[in-house]
Amino acid sequence: MINRDIPDIIVGRLPVYLRALRHMQAQEKQTTSSQELGEWVGISAAQIRKDLSQFGEFGKQGTGYNIAFLINKLLEILKLKQIRDVALIGMGDMGHALSRYQGLSDRGFQVTLVFDNDPDKIGERVGHFVVADNREMVNTIRAAGVKVGIICVPASAAQEVANKLIEAGVTAILNYAPISLNVPKGVRVQYLDPAVGLQRMSYYLD
Amino acid sequence: MINRDIPDIIVGRLPVYLRALRHMQAQEKQTTSSQELGEWVGISAAQIRKDLSQFGEFGKQGTGYNIAFLINKLLEILKLKQIRDVALIGMGDMGHALSRYQGLSDRGFQVTLVFDNDPDKIGERVGHFVVADNREMVNTIRAAGVKVGIICVPASAAQEVANKLIEAGVTAILNYAPISLNVPKGVRVQYLDPAVGLQRMSYYLD
Repeated sequence: MINRDIPDIIVGRLPVYLRALRHMQAQEKQTTSSQELGEWVGISAAQIRKDLSQFGEFGKQGTGYNIAFLINKLLEILKLKQIRDVALIGMGDMGHALSRYQGLSDRGFQVTLVFDNDPDKIGERVGHFVVADNREMVNTIRAAGVKVGIICVPASAAQEVANKLIEAGVTAILNYAPISLNVPKGVRVQYLDPAVGLQRMSYYLD
Repeated sequence: MINRDIPDIIVGRLPVYLRALRHMQAQEKQTTSSQELGEWVGISAAQIRKDLSQFGEFGKQGTGYNIAFLINKLLEILKLKQIRDVALIGMGDMGHALSRYQGLSDRGFQVTLVFDNDPDKIGERVGHFVVADNREMVNTIRAAGVKVGIICVPASAAQEVANKLIEAGVTAILNYAPISLNVPKGVRVQYLDPAVGLQRMSYYLD
């Protein structure tokens, strides 16, 4: 059913649709239209219909989309019907904040391993976690079969941490460090650098 | 000199080029090529040449780009030659982490105002800041002429906070809340939702 050749840009919009549909569901709405969904997410109705049509026929002309059904389909397409374990590297401010962030576990991901290289932090209890030594990273992550990593270390250490994650079998990296990572084919990186987001908007400011 | 019709997707890549060039400069490199820059950022050399050519002639055939010159040009294009003040709303874990994050002030933005609606947090001293009451948000931001806001409140409160920011004159919003915001034309939003980043990569996992 799933077409592996879906362009990445479409895949990237699906979590945004999913997030909006979940909010609609929380408001006890039953159905929606590409028009309405488009207003929620700031994407044209035509684009939404085109995106969703890549995966099959979801909506009915005139009656729109059943929200619960569409959520279920998106979870299936995005392989979010399971909870995935995540390793988090770097327990500074951002790492601490993320390890406690409910918005991950609500949406398919739970941090299960946390690492740092600071002797003062190693062994520290943070929420449900005990901070492990970076030197154990490769073995521990590989043994646990974790495929998803979050990098919260400074830019100067990020490539080295990425290399270790990849060595351990991680193929999906969320990178908070303000640096582009070199990764081999088959490994994906998503960047969350607040300064890049702000700088991009700065162009449009007076 | 600046062409106002540059597609947003190109504008969005410029901060990534800038970030890589800054790292090169920190390594005391003097010049680079579109090839080399492309390897740093994972974008093709042809795309980089095309993007940069929108803004004028930067490189010389054969000798490549002067890094300091190109950084300077990008700062000019992105209007980053000044430090912009930022208002941050929501002093939970993420807001705390961001208010202390050096990576913003190094790259053109300084948090100067922080707000929360929790009586236990209002008046609290956080680094250089005293947390102000959300109810003062519109007047304070307007009086200070701040145009950039960062939203770190829960999803349920984010739209209301966005409305207040916009009322206060903010036209660029970095949104950490996991919800799409409705904003009028002329206001820009960048989203930093870690779950969306992870869900997008989940599609490619087994």
